[in-house]
Amino acid sequence: MARPRNADTTGDTRERILRESARLFSELGYQGASTRAITEAVGIKQPSLFHYFAGKEAIGHELIAARLAPTTLLTGQFEHSEDDPALDLYRLFRNEMIVEFNETIDTRWLFRQPPAVAELFPEWGEAVEAGRSTMEAVLERGIRAGVFLPGHPKAVLELFDAIANEAMFWPRDLHSVQPDTFAEVLLRLVIADQPAIAEVVKRAQATA
Amino acid sequence: MARPRNADTTGDTRERILRESARLFSELGYQGASTRAITEAVGIKQPSLFHYFAGKEAIGHELIAARLAPTTLLTGQFEHSEDDPALDLYRLFRNEMIVEFNETIDTRWLFRQPPAVAELFPEWGEAVEAGRSTMEAVLERGIRAGVFLPGHPKAVLELFDAIANEAMFWPRDLHSVQPDTFAEVLLRLVIADQPAIAEVVKRAQATA
Repeated sequence: MARPRNADTTGDTRERILRESARLFSELGYQGASTRAITEAVGIKQPSLFHYFAGKEAIGHELIAARLAPTTLLTGQFEHSEDDPALDLYRLFRNEMIVEFNETIDTRWLFRQPPAVAELFPEWGEAVEAGRSTMEAVLERGIRAGVFLPGHPKAVLELFDAIANEAMFWPRDLHSVQPDTFAEVLLRLVIADQPAIAEVVKRAQATA
Repeated sequence: MARPRNADTTGDTRERILRESARLFSELGYQGASTRAITEAVGIKQPSLFHYFAGKEAIGHELIAARLAPTTLLTGQFEHSEDDPALDLYRLFRNEMIVEFNETIDTRWLFRQPPAVAELFPEWGEAVEAGRSTMEAVLERGIRAGVFLPGHPKAVLELFDAIANEAMFWPRDLHSVQPDTFAEVLLRLVIADQPAIAEVVKRAQATA
């Protein structure tokens, strides 16, 4: 119970540094937002910032960790069903888009960066790889089970990957399509039978 | 015929400035690449650069113009067929990916930028809007003609848009899927009948 007052303030300032950094990264880019701009936005002096974070890079790492925490796709923790790869694919995309659409901290401009910045945050590259592996595993299971179209799996995987990456850039206030609808339409890439897709949607709603 | 020697050198240096700028933007980002870094890479002094370009922004505009020139999708100049929206969709994606995969100057890091940089290059935003309108028109024509699945056109359009944007980020040296294959698989989003898709591919090859 020592110094409870101090502890509270610490939490607050730390939170505010993270929030304002994310906002400035979003507006100016990671490279364009200086620690000076961050401290000015928070209303603290530069040495105070370094009390909480080693620097701008450390703030970036923490924002990315917060972004990755709720996603099972990008952390490789997606749980496959026993025997329903179509349902898995639907859930995988729906859940990822729900996370994306509800994210309050915008980390888009930490995610997509030229090599000089990207190499500072290798955890993004690893997350993208984990997501790709998960999508590939679901795709392969579906093809093996005879549930998915067997043609052109490499192209399908690239398209899945593209959509997972791009979802991050769909403007939050403009998107008028729900995660469930996206997931349903994406099934068309691997299932030609429209009533079969409707069945998957029904199973997903039953287990939601 | 006055000063032919000078004219030649002008052409060369200008070209080299554009090429090295694109390379540095790709590695360091637009914000990360200074005019100083550009002139050092080209092997000229800073005032020489300003003889050819008003500054970094002018270089960016010229690179974007070069990137947009060969694409009919992003310039809104795509020519619809009389009565074959499925073939149009196939050609639209195939052609755009051929442009993308053959682009020698990498403008990806000029394209996807946080607002502070994006507002310097409004032509990108206009190009993306033009591409979206073209894709929307093809989609609507196909649905009206009864050739495309009528369900969830908004979601399909977002997915088309996402893939057109993301194709730019497919690593040039790694992509193992051809533009024709991508175009074929993308038809699955709007055509459930697999033999009908095979027919479109045949028509496209006949008119290529």
